[in-house]
Amino acid sequence: MKGITHFAVGDTIELYLLIKNATKGITNTGKPFLTLILQDKSGEMEAKLWDSSEIDEKQYIPQAIVKVSGDVQSYRGKSQLKIRQIRPTNSSDSVKVSDFLETAPISTDEITSKITQYIFEMKNPNIQRITRHLIKKYQQAFFEYPAATKNHHEFVSGLAYHVVSMLDLSKAIAGLYSSLDKDLLYSGIILHDLGKVIELSGPVSTTYTVEGNLLGHITIMVNEIGKAAEELDIKGEEVMILQHLVLSHHGKAEWGSPKPPMIKEAEILHYIDNLDAKMNMLDRALDRTNPGEFTERVFALDNRSFYKPSFHK
Amino acid sequence: MKGITHFAVGDTIELYLLIKNATKGITNTGKPFLTLILQDKSGEMEAKLWDSSEIDEKQYIPQAIVKVSGDVQSYRGKSQLKIRQIRPTNSSDSVKVSDFLETAPISTDEITSKITQYIFEMKNPNIQRITRHLIKKYQQAFFEYPAATKNHHEFVSGLAYHVVSMLDLSKAIAGLYSSLDKDLLYSGIILHDLGKVIELSGPVSTTYTVEGNLLGHITIMVNEIGKAAEELDIKGEEVMILQHLVLSHHGKAEWGSPKPPMIKEAEILHYIDNLDAKMNMLDRALDRTNPGEFTERVFALDNRSFYKPSFHK
Amino acid sequence: MKGITHFAVGDTIELYLLIKNATKGITNTGKPFLTLILQDKSGEMEAKLWDSSEIDEKQYIPQAIVKVSGDVQSYRGKSQLKIRQIRPTNSSDSVKVSDFLETAPISTDEITSKITQYIFEMKNPNIQRITRHLIKKYQQAFFEYPAATKNHHEFVSGLAYHVVSMLDLSKAIAGLYSSLDKDLLYSGIILHDLGKVIELSGPVSTTYTVEGNLLGHITIMVNEIGKAAEELDIKGEEVMILQHLVLSHHGKAEWGSPKPPMIKEAEILHYIDNLDAKMNMLDRALDRTNPGEFTERVFALDNRSFYKPSFHK
Amino acid sequence: MKGITHFAVGDTIELYLLIKNATKGITNTGKPFLTLILQDKSGEMEAKLWDSSEIDEKQYIPQAIVKVSGDVQSYRGKSQLKIRQIRPTNSSDSVKVSDFLETAPISTDEITSKITQYIFEMKNPNIQRITRHLIKKYQQAFFEYPAATKNHHEFVSGLAYHVVSMLDLSKAIAGLYSSLDKDLLYSGIILHDLGKVIELSGPVSTTYTVEGNLLGHITIMVNEIGKAAEELDIKGEEVMILQHLVLSHHGKAEWGSPKPPMIKEAEILHYIDNLDAKMNMLDRALDRTNPGEFTERVFALDNRSFYKPSFHK
Amino acid sequence: MKGITHFAVGDTIELYLLIKNATKGITNTGKPFLTLILQDKSGEMEAKLWDSSEIDEKQYIPQAIVKVSGDVQSYRGKSQLKIRQIRPTNSSDSVKVSDFLETAPISTDEITSKITQYIFEMKNPNIQRITRHLIKKYQQAFFEYPAATKNHHEFVSGLAYHVVSMLDLSKAIAGLYSSLDKDLLYSGIILHDLGKVIELSGPVSTTYTVEGNLLGHITIMVNEIGKAAEELDIKGEEVMILQHLVLSHHGKAEWGSPKPPMIKEAEILHYIDNLDAKMNMLDRALDRTNPGEFTERVFALDNRSFYKPSFHK
Amino acid sequence: MKGITHFAVGDTIELYLLIKNATKGITNTGKPFLTLILQDKSGEMEAKLWDSSEIDEKQYIPQAIVKVSGDVQSYRGKSQLKIRQIRPTNSSDSVKVSDFLETAPISTDEITSKITQYIFEMKNPNIQRITRHLIKKYQQAFFEYPAATKNHHEFVSGLAYHVVSMLDLSKAIAGLYSSLDKDLLYSGIILHDLGKVIELSGPVSTTYTVEGNLLGHITIMVNEIGKAAEELDIKGEEVMILQHLVLSHHGKAEWGSPKPPMIKEAEILHYIDNLDAKMNMLDRALDRTNPGEFTERVFALDNRSFYKPSFHK
Repeated sequence: MKGITHFAVGDTIELYLLIKNATKGITNTGKPFLTLILQDKSGEMEAKLWDSSEIDEKQYIPQAIVKVSGDVQSYRGKSQLKIRQIRPTNSSDSVKVSDFLETAPISTDEITSKITQYIFEMKNPNIQRITRHLIKKYQQAFFEYPAATKNHHEFVSGLAYHVVSMLDLSKAIAGLYSSLDKDLLYSGIILHDLGKVIELSGPVSTTYTVEGNLLGHITIMVNEIGKAAEELDIKGEEVMILQHLVLSHHGKAEWGSPKPPMIKEAEILHYIDNLDAKMNMLDRALDRTNPGEFTERVFALDNRSFYKPSFHK
Repeated sequence: MKGITHFAVGDTIELYLLIKNATKGITNTGKPFLTLILQDKSGEMEAKLWDSSEIDEKQYIPQAIVKVSGDVQSYRGKSQLKIRQIRPTNSSDSVKVSDFLETAPISTDEITSKITQYIFEMKNPNIQRITRHLIKKYQQAFFEYPAATKNHHEFVSGLAYHVVSMLDLSKAIAGLYSSLDKDLLYSGIILHDLGKVIELSGPVSTTYTVEGNLLGHITIMVNEIGKAAEELDIKGEEVMILQHLVLSHHGKAEWGSPKPPMIKEAEILHYIDNLDAKMNMLDRALDRTNPGEFTERVFALDNRSFYKPSFHK
Repeated sequence: MKGITHFAVGDTIELYLLIKNATKGITNTGKPFLTLILQDKSGEMEAKLWDSSEIDEKQYIPQAIVKVSGDVQSYRGKSQLKIRQIRPTNSSDSVKVSDFLETAPISTDEITSKITQYIFEMKNPNIQRITRHLIKKYQQAFFEYPAATKNHHEFVSGLAYHVVSMLDLSKAIAGLYSSLDKDLLYSGIILHDLGKVIELSGPVSTTYTVEGNLLGHITIMVNEIGKAAEELDIKGEEVMILQHLVLSHHGKAEWGSPKPPMIKEAEILHYIDNLDAKMNMLDRALDRTNPGEFTERVFALDNRSFYKPSFHK
Repeated sequence: MKGITHFAVGDTIELYLLIKNATKGITNTGKPFLTLILQDKSGEMEAKLWDSSEIDEKQYIPQAIVKVSGDVQSYRGKSQLKIRQIRPTNSSDSVKVSDFLETAPISTDEITSKITQYIFEMKNPNIQRITRHLIKKYQQAFFEYPAATKNHHEFVSGLAYHVVSMLDLSKAIAGLYSSLDKDLLYSGIILHDLGKVIELSGPVSTTYTVEGNLLGHITIMVNEIGKAAEELDIKGEEVMILQHLVLSHHGKAEWGSPKPPMIKEAEILHYIDNLDAKMNMLDRALDRTNPGEFTERVFALDNRSFYKPSFHK
Repeated sequence: MKGITHFAVGDTIELYLLIKNATKGITNTGKPFLTLILQDKSGEMEAKLWDSSEIDEKQYIPQAIVKVSGDVQSYRGKSQLKIRQIRPTNSSDSVKVSDFLETAPISTDEITSKITQYIFEMKNPNIQRITRHLIKKYQQAFFEYPAATKNHHEFVSGLAYHVVSMLDLSKAIAGLYSSLDKDLLYSGIILHDLGKVIELSGPVSTTYTVEGNLLGHITIMVNEIGKAAEELDIKGEEVMILQHLVLSHHGKAEWGSPKPPMIKEAEILHYIDNLDAKMNMLDRALDRTNPGEFTERVFALDNRSFYKPSFHK
Repeated sequence: MKGITHFAVGDTIELYLLIKNATKGITNTGKPFLTLILQDKSGEMEAKLWDSSEIDEKQYIPQAIVKVSGDVQSYRGKSQLKIRQIRPTNSSDSVKVSDFLETAPISTDEITSKITQYIFEMKNPNIQRITRHLIKKYQQAFFEYPAATKNHHEFVSGLAYHVVSMLDLSKAIAGLYSSLDKDLLYSGIILHDLGKVIELSGPVSTTYTVEGNLLGHITIMVNEIGKAAEELDIKGEEVMILQHLVLSHHGKAEWGSPKPPMIKEAEILHYIDNLDAKMNMLDRALDRTNPGEFTERVFALDNRSFYKPSFHK
């Protein structure tokens, strides 16, 4: 079925949609209205419900699923839905929240089995045990969380999917540069953003926790590695090296890493992280663009606009 | 007795001195010589031992105490000692390493008792217990280490002395701004640089350890606070807040704090740390300067030179 | 009585308020309206007077006091007053402008007496005479002006109150670091921002004067010190040193000081200025915040948001 | 045979070596001497020839091969050779310049065949023809030049070897991210630094040409692509896209690209270039370092020092 | 006749105007309206056409000339026209697009003859021939294009007018500094921005072309000089020097010049370009300002506001 | 007669020279020697006097004129004089200090008369009187001082010569841009660096005074303008505008101007200052360079090296 973002200005729609966000406003003439962000797997659209009642305000809240009809109009260059009719859904509508959330292109099972395999391939037992311990401790959240609140992989299972892509990339690179230590790369990749399961509030409507704000996912995970080593009674230099890989993976102090990479695999981990995030952002931006045209500006890519060559499809 | 730095170009000296550093060199004409950095409590001077023998190289090494006579000459605008005679010392000389090291202007006992008193004044038991636990765990090193390898408080007990000065300053400030939480300030001050006892190699000839290089004293101490809370079974928000105080005390990401201060006391801690370090650097630089003249450039103060007003003594 | 900022969305109010700012607008449908910023000692709120007449435009102007009733609504996340009734006040209302302006927490008399005392304590007659001369010359404005147009101490007598806080702080610090020259500190603090009485337009609805824009308060006061010395026939180095203290008190060229501090007391003055301004901004932001929550972003503190620990009241 | 860089301080050597650089000096006592940089495939060492004659100055010049015996000494922390005996070589010594130059680890034939294969795999005829034309035009230099005058791949055939590594890497990446246009990637990689054959003076003792200084290899190659298209009478958008790939491959204006990457493949090309250059620099630095120790600072990697974990061999 | 920008808030107008830009909007209550940017030689004003029909949307488009009557109102501190009546024009109105476009203050003929004269004065035949060839190739666009899409000389013939002003300025400067090579200066000035005729879309409603975005006018013109030299069979160093003048005229890498000026005339060209652009911006901003007041902020002059002394008319 | 800088390595010289600077050193073997900087109008050369006596140290001091013979050698790529014979001069040698100092290319009389003429041309009496007053007050120093201690116009009368060049340039520019106020330009140019007569120690062996370090020439002159206005009893806005011209002439806060130019003539003054200084630096660097070669790096021009086209003489 056609998703919300595939309708153009002038179209009339009738769809089940998930409310991502709801805000009350007052018009210049003093009338209340609701601004809703409605989403399905295809993306999201802003909608206006004029002359809203108090009942409306109570039932049209984030995470509610609604049935909506209305007209797509243009407001400041973006599509906006003018709602004609809207109603809450109930069990007879046979819809559930996960039907409306974007998810990773491969299944959780597949992701789990790939990560298990990469851990299995590790040869250094200290690195392997710490990695397995931490994945096990946080596995439920790890397989549900997005990789970020915006910019890249901001969908359900986005974090784990980003990790799997990075693992595949690291394997290909280590195949070409034989001096790389695969154990460090694999473990560093699996752990580098795992602290986000504590830094962020959850898989949907994601915000920062207090601990996320005051300490950040890097510091959180460095601490977790220390605790894991203590619990597993592991003493080797591997502990400090893994902490360094996580600590330095943002590459520079001004990007949040108090120490820059000072291990070869830490430097490469930073590159692989960036490369996979950028590919994800570029593919998303270019998917919405016709050949011979420029994408919208992508904030996390220095606010650049990218051109899709006219000989590309 | 007159210290080494109080002799002028043209003077002849005869002194017991400690070797801080020794390097072998070869003259243009192929002759070996030793460059020694010799120190006593007054400071240090470079010295040249020309035509050095292999025996010389073996006995004139860092931490050795020597008896030296020679002439103070000028080399590139700095004093340099041309050694006439030098010999190692033995027990009959009745000299010991600590006689030659600069130390804090107040005794270790006094420092210990002041810090104990500040911990005693804390009202929040979680904060008090964590602070006491960590000071006890690292007390020997804490009372011996310098505050830094150079720039400020780089002498024996420099770290603890810097902490005491900051505590006194924080008490005065909190007396004027009553909204400040003294427990957080005192604990934050006591713990902020404690990680240096792991980051640095020791109280003399101080260098960075591998862990110091790869993780840094901030990350090390944040981990230690986490472990202390676990061992003491403390759960409250105080743990995270103390970790934040340590994490943010450098003030900005580019100065090594992955999170900027986001607690009022964290912001003030950063200021107090800076203020005390600057006063120490300014006083040292101005002590060596006459009224109506400028100090040497002080690298850690943006390489500025300071003027001593002619109406100052 | 409850101030304007203590009313919540949904409340109905009836209050005397001062108009800080008034702007005419036109609705999408061509109707005129007035946007008023209304204030009392508790702070300010934006208000809308729909369908305003020409008479309205003439009588509802800055500095006018009005009696208003209306409803507090929410607009883009901020409170906004929808005016039901509004009328100008007259003598029978027994209200005056100063009733609506925030003022320093201590009285002008107290401020005056404290500053007089600090000048009295100065030992260097040149420094004392210049300071007394300039305070006398600009005393009326000095005791009325805010310390800035926004950010910190932006209230009546804010400048003098900021100076008194800094004086107390400097006295406490000089008590701990005995090498500091109190005369220079006290005089530097009293004079550092005095040029603002020429740079700014006045104590309320404060803007920049042409001279303030083209020369700035630092240059203005450096000139004034030179003139004062000439009038008092003072020749000593103190003149230049005081000029340097004022000139360098912003700390760096890019912050408006063409010379960085090159006198110890100039460096400390810069710190004390910053510390007192930050304490003022932090206290204001945290006063409006509940324990366990973050403040709004504070622009002048690098746009940071501060957390109020849940164990703080 | 043991190379020059494998001898330690105190060793005596007797070797054939190539003079990379020669400078005349005068000792403090007015005696002439020569400072020579001597190299073989293992690297280079500074050497001193004391009391040099005018004949010495004439025969010991860059590109000359000499037979040298002498002692390895330490000067300012680096090895330095004190020459005992030195003589020029002649045909009977059976040595040639290429014996002393570091070269790529795979043969020119292998490099040629790999690049030919990658060009063969291109599907877009416009891209393929321009790439083939330019490689053919500059092939001799392309297979001889270093990739840079210092930092990375600064050896004979370094440029072509760097290109082959990048091609292999791009193939692996394109295998994982199927949306990438391999033709653009392969052509962009082959052409990106080809302008260096005009920017630099030649394969050994490499310096910048006037054109290299005033225009730079990026501008030079963008012009060459334009000319190639004109000669081959190719009109499509591919010409401009290839010019953009070369133009933007340094990533940012401040790094020499007047336009940042605005095509997906341009962004990825920039990454692949960086990744391969960094791997090369890291491997070289770590090869000279023992496990458990830090490398020398690497200027082109932000002057960082890298740690070789003690569990690495 | 009085231009659009000379009417004040409250005035009623009736004018022929050119539509520069038209955007459809929807009011809060769902009604369509048009926002038009209307211009004549005096400048431009935003206008609102409420309750617009589909016919309105089709006939009120960029480049259309309309007859309008309406009221000037104030919206967010800027003048805005509320349209009462509007109609398209036809041949009987006797108006044409060029009547509404700002143009250079001297005629195209005069500009042409001045540039011809400067080329005639060149003594170096290589420089002269390349300059003449390129001006001839692009002469029509060169005499029509603006110098930029905004900021300075953004009017018909703005580019050529800017070039003429720079030529006059360079002649005056070269009269004072006799070491300057006038041929290089004149040619550099004439060619420096000529690439804009390819980078920009045309003389009105100017936007960037794809080639403009991906390569930029600097790279485009450097290529054109190379091609011109080839066609004219010119081999001398002058070709590279002219390319360098164009390449470096933005002065720094971060401003778009991959090479900074490395020829004296390149450095001076950069200065002359800046000086003339700034004079143009300053004169425009000050023309709209009364003595004793500040101009609006000028974005391209570091967002500064300029004061017009009260003794200036 | 051939100046010192025109001799090449290997030449023997016999010349009268002025000692600019003298430093005592000690060789590795403990022998004293003098390093002298010797100069004449052509420039300067470092010289070594080996085995110097105490008498040598006393008579070979800055500002002494000596007769020297010796050999030009090369040391670290720069020419160095090895002194064979040296003696002090006396009255019978008929040499005087001014014979050895570089001076402006036009005479002091000519400079004086040009500046007088420019002041005469001013129409605004306030501007004219302040300018004349200040030139008169500092005229002796103004006509002797260099424009800077290094970089540009660092010769006797350099300041006044720089001012005259700028005046001529400003006249030419004001001829082309008629909106410029010549009075402001002329006065701003004459006064902009006049504070250097207080900031710097004198016309030769120039250093910074204490006032120069703590206040700087900009602040000094802004104060002087204020005092001049007071003495002349001038009240108009011209005073503040002239102060602003001086205050802002470095263009940006980080370059020493606490306010950026906010008057059109201030902006242009900044440009003219830069342009004349750059022309001076470029001409000096290129004078020492052959066609087809690059100059040495010029520190004050962003450390750039400039190319002299091979078709320039």
